[in-house]
Amino acid sequence: MGAAILSDLTTEALIPATAVVGIAFALVQWVLVSRVSLSPEKEANGAGNDKNGDSGYLIDEEEGLNDHNVVVKCAEIQRAISEGATSFLFTEYQYVGIFMAIFAILIFLFLGSVEGFSTKSQPCTYSKDKTCKPALANAIFSTLAFLLGGITSVVSGFLGMKIATYANARTTLEARKGVGKAFITAFRSGAVMGFLLAANGLLVLFISINLFKLYYGDDWEGLFEAITGYGLGGSSMALFGRVGGGIYTKAADVGADLVGKVERNIPEDDPRNPAVIADNVGDNVGDIAGMGSDLFGSYAESSCAALVVASISSFGINHDLTAMLYPLLISSMGIIVCLITTLFATDFFEIKAVNEIEPSLKRQLIISTILMTGGIAIVTWVALPSTFTIFNFGVQKTVKNWELFFCVAIGLWAGLVIGFVTEYYTSNAYSPVQDVADSCRTGAATNVIFGLALGYKSVIIPIFAIAASIFVSFSFAAMYGIAVAALGMLSTIATGLAIDAYGPISDNAGGIAEMAGMSHRIRERTDALDAAGNTTAAIGKGFAIGSAALVSLALFGAFVSRAAISTVDVLTPKVFIGLLVGAMLPYWFSAMTMKSVGSAALKMVEEVRRQFNTIPGLMEGTAKPDYTNCVKISTDASIKEMIPPGALVMLTPLVVGTLFGVETLSGVLAGSLVSGVQIAISASNTGGAWDNAKKYIEAGTSAHARSLGPKGSDPHKAAVIGDTIGDPLKDTSGPSLNILIKLMAVESLVFAPFFATHGGILFKLF
Amino acid sequence: MGAAILSDLTTEALIPATAVVGIAFALVQWVLVSRVSLSPEKEANGAGNDKNGDSGYLIDEEEGLNDHNVVVKCAEIQRAISEGATSFLFTEYQYVGIFMAIFAILIFLFLGSVEGFSTKSQPCTYSKDKTCKPALANAIFSTLAFLLGGITSVVSGFLGMKIATYANARTTLEARKGVGKAFITAFRSGAVMGFLLAANGLLVLFISINLFKLYYGDDWEGLFEAITGYGLGGSSMALFGRVGGGIYTKAADVGADLVGKVERNIPEDDPRNPAVIADNVGDNVGDIAGMGSDLFGSYAESSCAALVVASISSFGINHDLTAMLYPLLISSMGIIVCLITTLFATDFFEIKAVNEIEPSLKRQLIISTILMTGGIAIVTWVALPSTFTIFNFGVQKTVKNWELFFCVAIGLWAGLVIGFVTEYYTSNAYSPVQDVADSCRTGAATNVIFGLALGYKSVIIPIFAIAASIFVSFSFAAMYGIAVAALGMLSTIATGLAIDAYGPISDNAGGIAEMAGMSHRIRERTDALDAAGNTTAAIGKGFAIGSAALVSLALFGAFVSRAAISTVDVLTPKVFIGLLVGAMLPYWFSAMTMKSVGSAALKMVEEVRRQFNTIPGLMEGTAKPDYTNCVKISTDASIKEMIPPGALVMLTPLVVGTLFGVETLSGVLAGSLVSGVQIAISASNTGGAWDNAKKYIEAGTSAHARSLGPKGSDPHKAAVIGDTIGDPLKDTSGPSLNILIKLMAVESLVFAPFFATHGGILFKLF
Repeated sequence: MGAAILSDLTTEALIPATAVVGIAFALVQWVLVSRVSLSPEKEANGAGNDKNGDSGYLIDEEEGLNDHNVVVKCAEIQRAISEGATSFLFTEYQYVGIFMAIFAILIFLFLGSVEGFSTKSQPCTYSKDKTCKPALANAIFSTLAFLLGGITSVVSGFLGMKIATYANARTTLEARKGVGKAFITAFRSGAVMGFLLAANGLLVLFISINLFKLYYGDDWEGLFEAITGYGLGGSSMALFGRVGGGIYTKAADVGADLVGKVERNIPEDDPRNPAVIADNVGDNVGDIAGMGSDLFGSYAESSCAALVVASISSFGINHDLTAMLYPLLISSMGIIVCLITTLFATDFFEIKAVNEIEPSLKRQLIISTILMTGGIAIVTWVALPSTFTIFNFGVQKTVKNWELFFCVAIGLWAGLVIGFVTEYYTSNAYSPVQDVADSCRTGAATNVIFGLALGYKSVIIPIFAIAASIFVSFSFAAMYGIAVAALGMLSTIATGLAIDAYGPISDNAGGIAEMAGMSHRIRERTDALDAAGNTTAAIGKGFAIGSAALVSLALFGAFVSRAAISTVDVLTPKVFIGLLVGAMLPYWFSAMTMKSVGSAALKMVEEVRRQFNTIPGLMEGTAKPDYTNCVKISTDASIKEMIPPGALVMLTPLVVGTLFGVETLSGVLAGSLVSGVQIAISASNTGGAWDNAKKYIEAGTSAHARSLGPKGSDPHKAAVIGDTIGDPLKDTSGPSLNILIKLMAVESLVFAPFFATHGGILFKLF
Repeated sequence: MGAAILSDLTTEALIPATAVVGIAFALVQWVLVSRVSLSPEKEANGAGNDKNGDSGYLIDEEEGLNDHNVVVKCAEIQRAISEGATSFLFTEYQYVGIFMAIFAILIFLFLGSVEGFSTKSQPCTYSKDKTCKPALANAIFSTLAFLLGGITSVVSGFLGMKIATYANARTTLEARKGVGKAFITAFRSGAVMGFLLAANGLLVLFISINLFKLYYGDDWEGLFEAITGYGLGGSSMALFGRVGGGIYTKAADVGADLVGKVERNIPEDDPRNPAVIADNVGDNVGDIAGMGSDLFGSYAESSCAALVVASISSFGINHDLTAMLYPLLISSMGIIVCLITTLFATDFFEIKAVNEIEPSLKRQLIISTILMTGGIAIVTWVALPSTFTIFNFGVQKTVKNWELFFCVAIGLWAGLVIGFVTEYYTSNAYSPVQDVADSCRTGAATNVIFGLALGYKSVIIPIFAIAASIFVSFSFAAMYGIAVAALGMLSTIATGLAIDAYGPISDNAGGIAEMAGMSHRIRERTDALDAAGNTTAAIGKGFAIGSAALVSLALFGAFVSRAAISTVDVLTPKVFIGLLVGAMLPYWFSAMTMKSVGSAALKMVEEVRRQFNTIPGLMEGTAKPDYTNCVKISTDASIKEMIPPGALVMLTPLVVGTLFGVETLSGVLAGSLVSGVQIAISASNTGGAWDNAKKYIEAGTSAHARSLGPKGSDPHKAAVIGDTIGDPLKDTSGPSLNILIKLMAVESLVFAPFFATHGGILFKLF
């Protein structure tokens, strides 16, 4: 076997240390962003201190851009967006809080009832000769972990939103000095979120494990079973965050576009549009807070999946702490690697022209992947014994440490492949999006047909990449291999999140420039930042869904193990009907969320039309629209509409497990996994492609693009329709689906002890 | 056990007798349709003989509709459509013929190589102590059966097309006498196709079994294994028919609409539109010939699946011929039941008003289902022993005859449920389609969002219905139960096909009325027939996909049995990656077919525009367009574009089975099944809903509908865009998907002996 090089004590010190380093780095970035002053008085001083070299502003040659009015206006708009977002999130958290409380009670009751709330110790699940803590303890600690996960998720989303709304106006102001400055501000702000979230998630998990250990002692099986509640809490919050935020942002976006762009022919983000603030708030609560919660959930779940599988491996049984905490060490290394990677974007290179933005973001992915490969090798070498044994479905498997290195690495590189394929299909630098743009010549119908076909096609390579990772990592280390492959894909989460958050910040910056009446050139710069952001958003969604597939499979494996079923045979009717119904769930869920966006958008359209028709002087710009009413419509709609799809996801495992038992539930998990992945990828790529096809026509950077434009031409109108259809696909239903598959898997795992004992009532009755 | 009441001799006489009755009935219907004369001279005499009561025409009050010119024109258009369709089908069959020949050789080589082309007898697969015919015999007879299936499929599709193009102009002419007359003509013609196809399929299968038996004698295991080639042949042809025909019809339809309706503002089917003949040809080669081949394939496969499973049951082993031929007896009973049902539409009731059409078609479904339930009971009672034993995956299961009755009946009734749900979601009499129409108020984007959501939602109940059938029929009689459930769903195929074929015939009739310059009132009548046809087309697709799901599962079960794998465990990586990749295949396939339609439509648009721009007097109606060029574009595009998706479906099982082996192939089959069903249902319902939302606005029969119209209003334009997007979804990619899942399953079954012996090369190497 051989022991790990790293001592347990060093491990216990290293993990929190890197988490603290990550948090400190995030704070430094924040300080740098905050140097861009938003109050006109201090501006001149602030500029003098500018860390990035240039002393003083590159005064723009155009009319008085630098004047106090513009800065005041930007600050004002920023405040409105920030207030709208904060108030929405508070409302959302209130409702979700009630839900979380109820669900926490459910967890306690279900898990407590496994042994009739007995406080007596019981034989362990996997080693019957040993004694483990009572089922009641599992109930209590799972509930605690669930609440902790939920709270961490809330904090992650909320902080992300705060930072994004802090940075958007600053990015706009920096855009006056050039595209490079604006890019750095937006990217740094993204990095604040990325590092805070990654470090925070790691730290809370680490502390929880250590606190729980005070009670559990040597019962690691019980300890890590209880810890899975952390993943469930994180993902439950993420579900509501994604769905609620997604409905909010798209209702506002679609509503604003349908009246503003299509009917009234005013530009995007025009301050005369009553829904414009709601639209910008939406970016922050959907794409920032929702996405932050989502990726935190993935991270928490993949760590939990790896830990729970590891707890019954040889190092779990031998209480080899360093090896046991290998998943956390990988994440620690990820923070360090991402820290170095970030410097490449902010300090080592400088962006001078618009066309350098996308390569710079792409470089981030490549650099972090290459560095992390080395990082994984180091962690694997120092933290794992040279060989160890994994117990999986009753079979034991000896794994060499270099084999585990390949498991993590293939996940990491599969993520990069998915990222690049996504970029190819959604960036307007390549032929797929250009073909979609070209199909706008013959109208919206062909645009939609080509866009849907593109989305379907973009699924092929990512699925092969995921399949290959699964095959390799399973062959090497069974379900533990798959869990760490997921972790590998998420190990560079800080960079991924920074890139992801950069997008909506730039989008908002453009909106603020427009609303503050800044010049066309500023808007062009922020548009360029935003276009790159569309592609990176699609890449981020690719990562999210790829890792979700791996995480779900690992959780699914852990569930099957825990529920004591040895095979999930497709050819038994119980499993097959589960598979069939499971494959249907993503459709049911998408139907709900898309219809929600549609209905909410219709309400928004009516309100916007009403304001244009009844407020005199609105179109002329002499009267101000009633922004708050639109914010309220989005808020009410999203709060109301997030409940049914949320309930569908949360209740399905409970109902199926209780009534039909663990075999059918296994089928449901497998079915929703294999079907949901495809819809999620195709939905977000289709949406991304439509968005960028529109931007391609608008930017008109090639002869081909100019032949389709300009803004307002028939092909452009067709492209706008495609973009609008893509909105709910790429920002509401698509990205929520990866939470659907993860959440159902982790929930099944948490409730596995209950289902294994009391599940399948219906079949027992008949 | 107890023997069957029906003697073997009676069975052998009854089956061909009912087939002959079916064919005779079809011929009678044909004679009745042919009474409507298309040559102006004989018309007056023909009318006197009219069987349906009225002597002479209800002379239309409008201007000279009855004059010779109109009849001559109708006949002329009909000839053009018929010639176009015939020439396309001949071209298609040439290409597919080459493919079939190559594939026949492949089948022979693969299956022959199982035992090295040895002519020696070998131990049977399932009862090792008995001796069965050599593998070479299986190779030869499977190849023969494959060719027979292919030829029968060609004949089915071709005859259907011939009848449809024979009936379309006659329906137009009858519409002058009233909607009831036109309905009867269209429906009778549909019945000709339905009965010919059902009876023909049954007869060829019956004769093949009896001829093969001359060689196989008592080796029923070998006999029915070879017979599965019949299903493969039928489905292979169907694949190309559906895909080729689907691309043809939608390229023409989309192309014609995009220029004609959207750009030039001329009505649908206007003779000035150069693509109008191609569009009408398309209905006949896609919706008629393609659909005919498809349903024949389903029928052949479900019979083969039931037979191959039955051959290793107790009555297969005891050589109880009557029980063995139970699937064929069910189909025989189906022909008789449908015959009676048809009379309800054509003779017992008469349609007097437009709003009676849809109820009358719905009544057909209900009557046939109720009668057939009795029919199944009778067949089950007389043909099956009171108990028998099914051998499934090494487990034996005793089945009572009444249990098998429930298996067939639940399939039949699940079909009805699927039919009604489909109707609810696609008919404009209910709120879902009306909501979609209403969303057109805010433009094409919301229309598309609501339409997609509707399609996703419409999947839920059908999936539960299929899941329930699977659970019940599997619980009663394992895979045999599922095979006969599929058969139950298809037992009323003659009526289903009659209803299905009725749609495109009415569609064509409307087109001919428009082109012949007949009055607005005639067009209104044919439009009403057509609108009902849209809904029934969606219902037909629902049946097709529902039965395909059951058939595929039964074939899959037979494959697993034959390939000697005892479980298909999702938690082995070989199976799981198969599942994941299998679930992706429908997306890949849809991407190909949708892009094909898009590209072909673009070419068509260019040609139509070119003609409008270069032929002087075309818009004014003084010059004739060049129809043949458009026909050629559709033909070339569909022939060229059907090959890649066809190859994907046909090669996947071969490649996966040979390289990765039977476990991975099992995963692929299960994955494509559970994922494909959902996309197929949602695609065809979304498309049907958009089409009828448009028709709802056009017809303007309610205050709500009128508030959205009239033709040419903004909401109507949005609805037209939705309709165009739906075209490839509902007529190309959606309905082809059920062939994808069936075909891969039956192909795997046919090649199972090869895969079991030589498959999985890749895993053997490493």
